[in-house]
Amino acid sequence: MTSQQADSAPANGPRIVVLVGGVGGARFLLGVRELLPEAEVSAIVNVGDDVWMHGLRICPDLDTCMYTLGGGIDPERGWGRLGETWHAKEELAKYHAQPDWFGLGDRDIATHLVRTEMLRAGYPLSAVTEALCNRWQPGVKLLPATDDRCETHVVISDPESPGERRAIHFQEWWVRHRAAVETHGFATIGADDAKPAPNVTELIVDADVVLLAPSNPVVSVGSILAVPGIRGALRTTKAPVIGVSPVIDGKPLRGMADECLSVIGVETTAEAVGRHYGSRSATGILDGWLIHTTDTAEVPDVQVRSVPLLMTDPPTTAEMVREALDLAGVKP
Amino acid sequence: MTSQQADSAPANGPRIVVLVGGVGGARFLLGVRELLPEAEVSAIVNVGDDVWMHGLRICPDLDTCMYTLGGGIDPERGWGRLGETWHAKEELAKYHAQPDWFGLGDRDIATHLVRTEMLRAGYPLSAVTEALCNRWQPGVKLLPATDDRCETHVVISDPESPGERRAIHFQEWWVRHRAAVETHGFATIGADDAKPAPNVTELIVDADVVLLAPSNPVVSVGSILAVPGIRGALRTTKAPVIGVSPVIDGKPLRGMADECLSVIGVETTAEAVGRHYGSRSATGILDGWLIHTTDTAEVPDVQVRSVPLLMTDPPTTAEMVREALDLAGVKP
Repeated sequence: MTSQQADSAPANGPRIVVLVGGVGGARFLLGVRELLPEAEVSAIVNVGDDVWMHGLRICPDLDTCMYTLGGGIDPERGWGRLGETWHAKEELAKYHAQPDWFGLGDRDIATHLVRTEMLRAGYPLSAVTEALCNRWQPGVKLLPATDDRCETHVVISDPESPGERRAIHFQEWWVRHRAAVETHGFATIGADDAKPAPNVTELIVDADVVLLAPSNPVVSVGSILAVPGIRGALRTTKAPVIGVSPVIDGKPLRGMADECLSVIGVETTAEAVGRHYGSRSATGILDGWLIHTTDTAEVPDVQVRSVPLLMTDPPTTAEMVREALDLAGVKP
Repeated sequence: MTSQQADSAPANGPRIVVLVGGVGGARFLLGVRELLPEAEVSAIVNVGDDVWMHGLRICPDLDTCMYTLGGGIDPERGWGRLGETWHAKEELAKYHAQPDWFGLGDRDIATHLVRTEMLRAGYPLSAVTEALCNRWQPGVKLLPATDDRCETHVVISDPESPGERRAIHFQEWWVRHRAAVETHGFATIGADDAKPAPNVTELIVDADVVLLAPSNPVVSVGSILAVPGIRGALRTTKAPVIGVSPVIDGKPLRGMADECLSVIGVETTAEAVGRHYGSRSATGILDGWLIHTTDTAEVPDVQVRSVPLLMTDPPTTAEMVREALDLAGVKP
């Protein structure tokens, strides 16, 4: 399971590594591929959302990236398969099988069946992802941040036992409760023992540029950074590290990043998120920070540039990526 | 997981135990339930066809009985769910996941997911079946012949290596090859170590009548009889044991029973199958043998009666069951 990219001579164009979550990350990758169809692009994908449900191993962010780049995504919903049906889910509900609040589509189930059978046979998630991508041909190398179980859980006030706290899986918090429950913090279960997946740190260290997609800074990029070794690779790579703000005009681009940020005491502003990531010349991970034209931000020792942060379609997203590369001093 | 039936006082009507396979067995049970809606009916269901596919445990005969009696069957096809879709199967084929020749429907998958998760959690198949039947309310107690893995495999001439033999799972022989491959015998893998599921032998021993459905005598009823202890219970019960011929006019009622019978050297006639089962007063399991009006059969020390063996609808099937009970000297 060696990566050709890590060993081979530079391809046509810069070696780009992108840290991504789900929907926003996948759309950002479409822009990267649009701008640099020949470049060697590796996406390090959040696996903090991964979950066992009904005996299936589900990797929402990996699948969203794979389906989006492979042309199988439902573009309206942003996740799951185009032309999806929900018959298995309907039947599971009739069996009163829990959980019943997760969108498990019939087409999607095939992906989970293949993945689960391979995992049970002993293949690591990175190898499973490569096998699944043989079908989807995403044009970008998709790597899980780690092959180990490293899941984001959320500490909440137990709605059923006032005064008590308990931890639930991120998916339960996000999908079932829509983050509308008193929340005290996040814990990445398994992070202490997790290792980056093969080639992840090497790709970061050998990259020409590293980009942080405008994904959730807490539960997407943050969960990637929780894997020991990845933050260190970002701090030691010679490549410039450029972040793209997921916050515009004080609102998250998508999803409930504001809810997550407030839990960890960070304001929902482009500046606060940039400061949360911090400068590489201090203890952080950024060299540059891309924010939207209507925003302003001052992040000590980080070059900030404001450009239109729009991902309406791949060509528009490609312009945003071009600005990120320009800020990094890397030619597309 | 004790069976109420085995311990409680006699219900309204005779205690009936039926040995069944899939489609034909399920339709026979519809007739039993039609004739005796108040009776305590237990079906001992073949599990020799059970198989792991795509990480799911699939029990074709149990599901066919459950869906048929629970009103969820596709009556045209005889197996699988009404209103079924096949999207997961289509997607599995696009991943080149094997096997690709099995009819795995989206609704059906929910049953397999619930079953597989319960089995992996340590519940025996009999408890899983009871849990699934909580939804379907089949009106008949469905019991797997055994909770142990006890699968029918088929010894064939290897189509890829002339002169060599190999064993394949029954489903591969039946569904993929349609039995159209040189076949040398059947082997029930796991039979040596299998035990009857809880209550199976007790139900047989305490029954007022035991019926053999017109199911495949080799790979349905035969696979049930391969579970050590079941044949012995049939030979020691005080209840009369009445078989119903699955062969009419030298042809199987359904399926490819003729192919199976020829492999074990039994003619496809009602008489030959009756003799194959044999009389309880010798080394066999029958007291009575019901054959179709156009057939004749002489089976030593077995009472043979010819009646219309039609299962066109539950009332017609009920008439056939009435004849079986009458032959047993049991009042409905």
